[in-house]
Amino acid sequence: MSLPRTVKIVEVGPRDGLQNEKQPVPTAVKVELIERLADAGLPAVEATAFVSPKWVPQMADSAEVMKALRRKEGVAYPVLAPNLKGFDAAVEAGAVEVAVFGAASEAFSQKNINCSVAESIKRFEPVVCAALALDMKVRGYVSCVVGCPYEGPVAPQKAAEVAQRLFDMGCYEVSLGDTIGVGTPVAVQRMIEACARHVPMARLAGHYHDTYGMAVANVYASLQLGMRVFDSSVAGLGGCPYAAGASGNVATEDVVYLLNGLGIETGIDMDRLLDAGQFILGHLGRAPAAKSARALLAKRGAGGA
Amino acid sequence: MSLPRTVKIVEVGPRDGLQNEKQPVPTAVKVELIERLADAGLPAVEATAFVSPKWVPQMADSAEVMKALRRKEGVAYPVLAPNLKGFDAAVEAGAVEVAVFGAASEAFSQKNINCSVAESIKRFEPVVCAALALDMKVRGYVSCVVGCPYEGPVAPQKAAEVAQRLFDMGCYEVSLGDTIGVGTPVAVQRMIEACARHVPMARLAGHYHDTYGMAVANVYASLQLGMRVFDSSVAGLGGCPYAAGASGNVATEDVVYLLNGLGIETGIDMDRLLDAGQFILGHLGRAPAAKSARALLAKRGAGGA
Repeated sequence: MSLPRTVKIVEVGPRDGLQNEKQPVPTAVKVELIERLADAGLPAVEATAFVSPKWVPQMADSAEVMKALRRKEGVAYPVLAPNLKGFDAAVEAGAVEVAVFGAASEAFSQKNINCSVAESIKRFEPVVCAALALDMKVRGYVSCVVGCPYEGPVAPQKAAEVAQRLFDMGCYEVSLGDTIGVGTPVAVQRMIEACARHVPMARLAGHYHDTYGMAVANVYASLQLGMRVFDSSVAGLGGCPYAAGASGNVATEDVVYLLNGLGIETGIDMDRLLDAGQFILGHLGRAPAAKSARALLAKRGAGGA
Repeated sequence: MSLPRTVKIVEVGPRDGLQNEKQPVPTAVKVELIERLADAGLPAVEATAFVSPKWVPQMADSAEVMKALRRKEGVAYPVLAPNLKGFDAAVEAGAVEVAVFGAASEAFSQKNINCSVAESIKRFEPVVCAALALDMKVRGYVSCVVGCPYEGPVAPQKAAEVAQRLFDMGCYEVSLGDTIGVGTPVAVQRMIEACARHVPMARLAGHYHDTYGMAVANVYASLQLGMRVFDSSVAGLGGCPYAAGASGNVATEDVVYLLNGLGIETGIDMDRLLDAGQFILGHLGRAPAAKSARALLAKRGAGGA
């Protein structure tokens, strides 16, 4: 199978990334980060989460972020809304696309949100219904599609079942998350193949963590199956909550470098993406972690191309 | 094409890695590192280089390293010997396998060793002849097989020509080096395909740098073509001389994690490999850089599996 010609990257740094950063980030910085990412050409930027500030203090200013945001025509700004309370607040703040999430692992669902996978789906079903009733788009996430920090390997069929539920419920896209980054190319391909038996490939997205350095290879393996949507986080923001000091979401820079090298169009301007990464890293007081970013910034510093 | 069942990893950390480390490493530490790597199951450990200490001060103790080394049955300890003077010293110190190198890029050859590609091949041809006359094995390296820091992209045919020269001259294995790590999977595959038209695939090795985070994906793409030998550096030792702060050789830990995940046998014990990495990083006063190492060590610290 030939590789796709174009790929859509969904930037998840401002939400999935920042929510794992302990250091509080001012609202204005979050807003500028989202705007810089949209200006760099990202077609979708997950902006924030409408969740309890008790559980996720970093997302306490979600309404302020959405209200302050200068939105760019043609860019989607989905927000996480796990329940109706969050959904109502999201709509009130001007969100027009929401995201919900389920897990492919029972143990993860129990430990993470304190209910079974089936119960979690029941809980967010009203969110999907309410959103569709308002003509809003809903994106679905499935976590632990390859492995679980509590259960170990996860059967592809488990991921496929949750993906199908989300798609059948009305999610326009289902993002398959290797939450702990244990996937390697063949395991990821088996998982995608299982999901693609129930959800059209064009509606599936790969959401890979780079915890073990495998994410870019997993993106490549997914492209070989025809997958055309990938989630990533600018500057690799986020880290891994299950292994202190380890990497989390794959860096957008690394994914864009891969796609550029493969001749696949993304519409993203690498230079502006690097600037967006430097902007947020400057606020967090951190050096670039994405390998491509380190190399490209070193060349930029040396006056190279 | 199905993936290979077994892969040989050639560990290049003690030579290719350490020679790019500015901090001098004591001979005893180098020797212990090599021994730990062999004990971890690496079937080949490039031990040192017999080059002018004026150019590579880190390798000034090459004879001492070779003489002190406790050699393990069945493990190869190739040493770099770019000319007859180095070769004689290597033989004198007990080396039974040597390595020579050429570049696929004219500009790189001129800037790096101050002669044309053709001249460089002429220079090391006597080394190969002398080694073969002594029944020694010779490994060949080709650098800049995908891109050059001075010329930009390198045509696959350029890499193939040098690979063929090395093989025809008597090298039992030709290692294809993406010296600046700019390769992405399809470009790497095209380069390998060009080389495999002149050298049997079983005699080709992939030597990838992770400067832009692409090395693991490039290993995977190479496996898909049937390549079965890869060079890597424990703990990602080395860095990139062409981009300050950027990554160099792909970390052995990341390659082993990939291969383990794909069910491909390497004979390497990941735990002992991690220990070898911690040993040398302790001496260099650095934290682990390999993502798989960071994640696995974090789990080890947490008492996890």
